[in-house]
Amino acid sequence: MYSELKTSTRILMGPGPSDAHPRVLKAMATPLIGHLDPEFVTIMDEVKTMVQETFITKNHLTFVVSAPGSAGMETCLVNLIEPGDEVIIGVNGVFGGRMVDIAERCGAIVHKIEVEWGTVISTDHVKKALEKCPKPKLLALVHAETSTGALQPLKEISDLVHNAGGLFMVDAVTSYCGIELKVDEWGIDAIYTGTQKCLSAPPGLSPVSFSDKAVQVLENRKTKVQSWFLDLSLVKNYWGGAKRAYHHTAPVSSVFALRESLRIVLEEGLDNRWVRHQKVHQVLKTKLETLGFQYLVEEPYRLPNLNSVFLPKGNDEALLRTKLLNDYNIEVGGGLGAFAGKIWRIGIMGESCTNNHVNMLVSALEDMKEFKY
Amino acid sequence: MYSELKTSTRILMGPGPSDAHPRVLKAMATPLIGHLDPEFVTIMDEVKTMVQETFITKNHLTFVVSAPGSAGMETCLVNLIEPGDEVIIGVNGVFGGRMVDIAERCGAIVHKIEVEWGTVISTDHVKKALEKCPKPKLLALVHAETSTGALQPLKEISDLVHNAGGLFMVDAVTSYCGIELKVDEWGIDAIYTGTQKCLSAPPGLSPVSFSDKAVQVLENRKTKVQSWFLDLSLVKNYWGGAKRAYHHTAPVSSVFALRESLRIVLEEGLDNRWVRHQKVHQVLKTKLETLGFQYLVEEPYRLPNLNSVFLPKGNDEALLRTKLLNDYNIEVGGGLGAFAGKIWRIGIMGESCTNNHVNMLVSALEDMKEFKY
Repeated sequence: MYSELKTSTRILMGPGPSDAHPRVLKAMATPLIGHLDPEFVTIMDEVKTMVQETFITKNHLTFVVSAPGSAGMETCLVNLIEPGDEVIIGVNGVFGGRMVDIAERCGAIVHKIEVEWGTVISTDHVKKALEKCPKPKLLALVHAETSTGALQPLKEISDLVHNAGGLFMVDAVTSYCGIELKVDEWGIDAIYTGTQKCLSAPPGLSPVSFSDKAVQVLENRKTKVQSWFLDLSLVKNYWGGAKRAYHHTAPVSSVFALRESLRIVLEEGLDNRWVRHQKVHQVLKTKLETLGFQYLVEEPYRLPNLNSVFLPKGNDEALLRTKLLNDYNIEVGGGLGAFAGKIWRIGIMGESCTNNHVNMLVSALEDMKEFKY
Repeated sequence: MYSELKTSTRILMGPGPSDAHPRVLKAMATPLIGHLDPEFVTIMDEVKTMVQETFITKNHLTFVVSAPGSAGMETCLVNLIEPGDEVIIGVNGVFGGRMVDIAERCGAIVHKIEVEWGTVISTDHVKKALEKCPKPKLLALVHAETSTGALQPLKEISDLVHNAGGLFMVDAVTSYCGIELKVDEWGIDAIYTGTQKCLSAPPGLSPVSFSDKAVQVLENRKTKVQSWFLDLSLVKNYWGGAKRAYHHTAPVSSVFALRESLRIVLEEGLDNRWVRHQKVHQVLKTKLETLGFQYLVEEPYRLPNLNSVFLPKGNDEALLRTKLLNDYNIEVGGGLGAFAGKIWRIGIMGESCTNNHVNMLVSALEDMKEFKY
């Protein structure tokens, strides 16, 4: 027989999930109602409106994919791409690379803009890519590269893509509800995110949104979408439309939690939330640099909410990370891909973005006799 | 501003979700831990073992897809099928039809065994199909057709498929943990299910399992799986393997809940649970027939846990269903597809499978002045 579920009370300061608010956890435990219950239909409508508000968009085709952020990424790509389409994808970390992988599985001819991990893609890079591929179906960028902590400027690139007649697609998994993000104002045509980063809801869902121009592309497809589960021509009738049509069974409890987390974001206000992430980042940055940590990313392109840093020389990052978790219950993230074993990724996202979190981490480090600074 | 989450206390007697046990809801509300936390890795291992126990299989490749049952269906098909493969799929309701749709999106040549909705597929049907398609890559059947309430015998068909050199794939969404199901003994090579039916966990996850023969087929693929999110060659290293490799972020809270629901199943014992569903079904059946309800499916092929019934003549099914929900908080399901507006689907699944549930429903019907019997 298996024992009762016993978990330690962690302080989540890695790349996600972040700490969830008690109100969100409470919402998760609400007794279930049917997914076609009129009460649940109302909740879906409310969630849709709140996702529109937090994306700052009026896009009708805004809803929540019933699976984690990676499935949101795949939703955007499988629906917008048809075999033989040419697309441009920026690759400056793990998640740009993942988009390339998925786009290729959709039969796309992918033109990569590859830049060094930790740096961002410039308008010059994009112009050069557009010379090789002047009529892309879409150009996709990662707003906040979770693997490196780099913040990609989007607004200027949007115009370049639109002038070339392409759609502008954005990965906002780590930026959503933590950093300035304005879907309509920035001309983003397709966007996906996750729930477990700056929104501080449990992982498992992926809010997405598509502009009217993207919807036109969907409606003009000549081939069927290769995924049934992610096919927007089917899913859109489940999340809206005149008559609610059964598609799959939505994760009722996770939607309850998502609703509560969105409510908390709107109570705080998006602007205030963005400012909070910047302010706590400044405190963390000063303290980390005093201890001898060095940032991977140049200051103007640094994510406030995901701090990727080299440790002071002479430290064993894996040992320290394990001790932080075991002795202090604090989780920070290790490096991914090229940076595995080399950097830490320290998340201050959503409910994990407080001065207390910074102080707990910094004091724990100072306490640890294994930490050399 | 949006109001606090307020839901009615529903009695869930539709086709799913079913009522969740308070212990499961409590597990959902456990504060989050990281998805790569050693404690979570242990929980994933425990869940894997409990899924093996409840499927009654020793299959190594047994894990949980981070999305609802439909994504489990798609996981099986996109991984096992390559373009040009010939497959046989039984269609006697909505979910067989859905498998055909997905298999075609995978580029398969699909041979359908179509029989009347509410009936099941016989060994003779299968033999005839094997004459037209003597070397199928796989043959897929729905064990418990949620749209009709029909229970498909599997064991005899398994041998026919294996003798033809094909894989035997089964949809066990509505049967798992409610009706006898023995993956190894019945020679099932690929199986998927959902969490929100007889397991009584919240919807959103899909336990799956693959035989060693199916794993060989996966390993001998010549083409990449068309879905990145569902690609088993990647996912399997997240759910096991020597070194746990990051793939996506698992829905931590839902996995907590799944673990607790599996623990409850194993505490009761699978055999006892199957017997309970049969016993409560007999009580429900007698009472429904006394009221003039008629079963859609012939007795030997009737699902105990999902009772699809025609109402006594002269009743407005939609009106009664709405009144049951509004006045008594009881949810029953309407018909799907060909049976929309014609039948009710009354679920007694998992925590919703008690004599009290039967009595609440039957007494409410007797109370309602609109109900003619």
